[in-house]
Amino acid sequence: MALQGKKLINNPDDVVTEFIEGLVETYPGLQYLDGFPEIKVVLRADAVGGAYDKVAVISGGGSGHEPAHAGFVGPGMLTAAVSGDVFASPPVDSILAAIRAVTGTMGCLLIIKNYTGDRLNFGLAAEQAKSEGYKIEMVIVGDDCALPPPRGIAGRRGLAGTILVHKVAGAAADAGLSLADVAAEAKHASEAVGTMGVALSVCTLPGQVTSDRLGPEQIELGLGIHGEPGAAVVELQTVDVVVEHVLKQILSQETQYLPITRGSNAVLLINGLGATPVMELMIAARKAVPELQLEYGIAVDRVYTGTFMTSLDMAGLSITIMRSDENILQRLDAPTKAPAWPVGSEGNRPPAKFPVPVPPSPSMKDDEILSERQELSKQGCMLEAAIEAAAKELIDLKDNLNDWDSKVGDGDCGTTMYRGATAILEDMKTCYHLNDAAGTVNEIGSTIRKVMGGTSGILYDILCKAAYASLKQNKNITAYEWADALEASIAAVSKYGGARAGYRTMLDALIPASTVLKQSLKAGDDPVTAFIASSEAASAGAESTKQMQAKAGRSSYISPDHLVSIPDPGAMAAAAWYRAAALSVKNKLHASES
Amino acid sequence: MALQGKKLINNPDDVVTEFIEGLVETYPGLQYLDGFPEIKVVLRADAVGGAYDKVAVISGGGSGHEPAHAGFVGPGMLTAAVSGDVFASPPVDSILAAIRAVTGTMGCLLIIKNYTGDRLNFGLAAEQAKSEGYKIEMVIVGDDCALPPPRGIAGRRGLAGTILVHKVAGAAADAGLSLADVAAEAKHASEAVGTMGVALSVCTLPGQVTSDRLGPEQIELGLGIHGEPGAAVVELQTVDVVVEHVLKQILSQETQYLPITRGSNAVLLINGLGATPVMELMIAARKAVPELQLEYGIAVDRVYTGTFMTSLDMAGLSITIMRSDENILQRLDAPTKAPAWPVGSEGNRPPAKFPVPVPPSPSMKDDEILSERQELSKQGCMLEAAIEAAAKELIDLKDNLNDWDSKVGDGDCGTTMYRGATAILEDMKTCYHLNDAAGTVNEIGSTIRKVMGGTSGILYDILCKAAYASLKQNKNITAYEWADALEASIAAVSKYGGARAGYRTMLDALIPASTVLKQSLKAGDDPVTAFIASSEAASAGAESTKQMQAKAGRSSYISPDHLVSIPDPGAMAAAAWYRAAALSVKNKLHASES
Repeated sequence: MALQGKKLINNPDDVVTEFIEGLVETYPGLQYLDGFPEIKVVLRADAVGGAYDKVAVISGGGSGHEPAHAGFVGPGMLTAAVSGDVFASPPVDSILAAIRAVTGTMGCLLIIKNYTGDRLNFGLAAEQAKSEGYKIEMVIVGDDCALPPPRGIAGRRGLAGTILVHKVAGAAADAGLSLADVAAEAKHASEAVGTMGVALSVCTLPGQVTSDRLGPEQIELGLGIHGEPGAAVVELQTVDVVVEHVLKQILSQETQYLPITRGSNAVLLINGLGATPVMELMIAARKAVPELQLEYGIAVDRVYTGTFMTSLDMAGLSITIMRSDENILQRLDAPTKAPAWPVGSEGNRPPAKFPVPVPPSPSMKDDEILSERQELSKQGCMLEAAIEAAAKELIDLKDNLNDWDSKVGDGDCGTTMYRGATAILEDMKTCYHLNDAAGTVNEIGSTIRKVMGGTSGILYDILCKAAYASLKQNKNITAYEWADALEASIAAVSKYGGARAGYRTMLDALIPASTVLKQSLKAGDDPVTAFIASSEAASAGAESTKQMQAKAGRSSYISPDHLVSIPDPGAMAAAAWYRAAALSVKNKLHASES
Repeated sequence: MALQGKKLINNPDDVVTEFIEGLVETYPGLQYLDGFPEIKVVLRADAVGGAYDKVAVISGGGSGHEPAHAGFVGPGMLTAAVSGDVFASPPVDSILAAIRAVTGTMGCLLIIKNYTGDRLNFGLAAEQAKSEGYKIEMVIVGDDCALPPPRGIAGRRGLAGTILVHKVAGAAADAGLSLADVAAEAKHASEAVGTMGVALSVCTLPGQVTSDRLGPEQIELGLGIHGEPGAAVVELQTVDVVVEHVLKQILSQETQYLPITRGSNAVLLINGLGATPVMELMIAARKAVPELQLEYGIAVDRVYTGTFMTSLDMAGLSITIMRSDENILQRLDAPTKAPAWPVGSEGNRPPAKFPVPVPPSPSMKDDEILSERQELSKQGCMLEAAIEAAAKELIDLKDNLNDWDSKVGDGDCGTTMYRGATAILEDMKTCYHLNDAAGTVNEIGSTIRKVMGGTSGILYDILCKAAYASLKQNKNITAYEWADALEASIAAVSKYGGARAGYRTMLDALIPASTVLKQSLKAGDDPVTAFIASSEAASAGAESTKQMQAKAGRSSYISPDHLVSIPDPGAMAAAAWYRAAALSVKNKLHASES
């Protein structure tokens, strides 16, 4: 089943030039040399013209490793990057063009990865440039730690560790050092760095078919960045096991690739290979840091986690370790405007990360125990009666609500309301401060949230919290304050829930109730009259949902024909508890008056 | 064929907490609240403790969108980010903990994407926090342009445009604005932004099987960031066509989602969805900028290309457009230390990018025509004779070289050398400046490079370039200068090619030649004697390769047994042309003496 790799590209032959065109569109500080398609050179817009007064640092190589190398061009890092075609070394003329474009009297350092094509093409360009009078040095990075020491000419491959060498050299050049000194720092860095990768998938060249080399449960260890097979194929393992294995290889006592021992300091680079989510890279970083510190006694000075040197669309990552010292850290921390160099990793890390304790609620009352039942005020008694009446009404209405809901929703509205109502009756006995109306409303919200769940639970909790915030601003709570609280509640439910009048929700009961309550009080009606009138408006509003099309919740997926003559159960529930509460207030007042 | 998605993770339930742990390992400026696994809050290490003296800006939502939102925490952007589980809104208690941790007297702005879960949980937390005395505002971003205007409550989804709203709000807060003003700027930005995505693959939840919803040649347009199906499934097209389509939808005159018309200014954000290579994102940027400018008359002020708001490991991208004005640009350009905000996109873009012309070679001689044959000096005649002899020797040796090479390599050594030799004889007639020995050597290199190709071509060119650079430092070229040039050539070939003595390459002829030449001259031998002795050493060296194991080139893949008694053809060729040249010098001198 050979499939052509899916890619968002145009002509496969144009991917590199089109990448460069997009790059310079994105970054105003980058520019490119003319001469497409042969010449593919990205350079600092401010370093063109041969008058550059610092050592130019140039890198490059085959394409397919984006953001490397062009993404690392910028003040403080590379002066120019030369791209070849995908996985092919750039031709000598392109490299020469880059050298001539940015090299001034201070000379030019070429940093390349150790591949024969790059060595030869950059080498020839270097010799040609020297013969033209330019001062040129070259540093070749071979940081691969996956394979045993090679016997012959090829040497170790250059991998993501090259990026750290770029940064060291770029910062040294930016500091005004001579070519010899910049080259010496780059060489020192290149000898202190090791890398090994692991791949979950094989990369696909533009326009080519995707290899099925790797089985669905397999990964490759010690891969290259050009699609070449890895050193070993193993079964997919947890990232912790993979990281342990990779670190062991990099720090192997057998190969002695890295001059790092117990007590050394190092920086760590976790590099995504092209199609690896940031999440997975960070999970690998989480394992690698303590592993280095606890298992190998290596202090980790900096961590760079991101996508630096890719292999097209390969899924997987590589880990790079570089021995660090004061000078290297200074170079790595030095500011740069290179777009792909990570932000926020610089500076000393705290010795250990301690999680910040979770701040307590300023209104927590954990210690406060309702050891004895407080004496209820007249207001407290009335509130108790209203809550009880409202809750009992919902308990009585359970089957009706479920019945309506089974026709327009998922049939559990009654059960959900029942659960909330019984919990409120229970909690009221033990932990509501009924003399404090605002506090009680807040506590009702907490009860609801605890047992009701789902959208209705959170919406009722929002309703209570908003009412609480409104009520608690007042010392004396009269009908007017309740009216304000109802209005604030409706605003909050509408804002966070998104519903408005006519959406076939509980607001179709509560909005008319609020409107009538305000009007009635404004007209000078006594509170009881106003509440009763308001509750009648709530009932009428709930009934009117029979004619409404659903715009929220599960009912919105039901054909309008099915909804006619069925009221919205949420609106009916709201109207019911509201009316029960209003009637209970009326009865309570009449009882105390008579 | 349902496969479990391949991921570099441990327990799928731990991905979010482990991501956060890796994140704070990477960035010293970030910290996290305790309370794992329920509470997942990343915050600025310097803004903890409630003493923060600016408006806190908090975002968050389900995980799986990394680097969003935690990667955007930092001075100048978010103060904290609250993460839920993958694709699940964070619980109210986590949001409250974040608010309490970073909100000071200036208050707190919550910015969320428009999803019911986020609206309700952040809404409830906001109301709870208000009831605790915090000043809270909320802005809800719904920037999706893929679907027709929704009829009901759900509204448009929040997508990558949210990141730009974060930046505007974060910069406004950093500038010291009041909560009301920060919220107003965020709201203004949220109303000026639109986004649409396109997916090549469906994302896979950790521990889940991968959906095969999309065929191998299909893409989805107008996808969400939670794996929900896109608005349409179409055949895979070129990225140019895809970008055109997406821009048309975003800027649709029918939906009028964006307040952008011809003549407006805008910023562009190209966002990778998790598994999209940088190369493809840049190619999309390359198309989108001129398309906006030329087709829609919209001036593009800034371009942000990268990975900002992902959908786990989804391949694909989204495009976001935000209408820009002076204030928005100032906010977007303001410095931030948030790790995932792009570097290098700030500042005014040049009106158009003109490619920098390729610099000419300082030694180009295009205009210089060898109109008439120059009179050859004695040195020039000798050089001509040496070159002719060397080339003819290689031509004569063609079959032998091919024969040896067919036993230890790919059999074309003779043919390749023949091609170079005949071209040299041809070019020598018309364009070599034989009186200028250094220049001639350089020109031979160019001839070789032109016709020989492959590794041997480039190595011989390097050899010539290095000899040229060495020779041209001297006005008078005697045997001593030739000896220095040979030494420099060998060093360059060894450096860039990687071979040393004993690697079974041409160096096994040239290194003994160089050594003997230097020794002989130093011992006071006359130049001819020295050259002849040197050429004998070259021949002996080439013969000695019969006993060598290959460490370079194709021969290194051949079993040592097969190599015994076959000389390295490259070494034999080098010894042959060198000896022929030496003999010709001797004959020439004897002829002129006699």
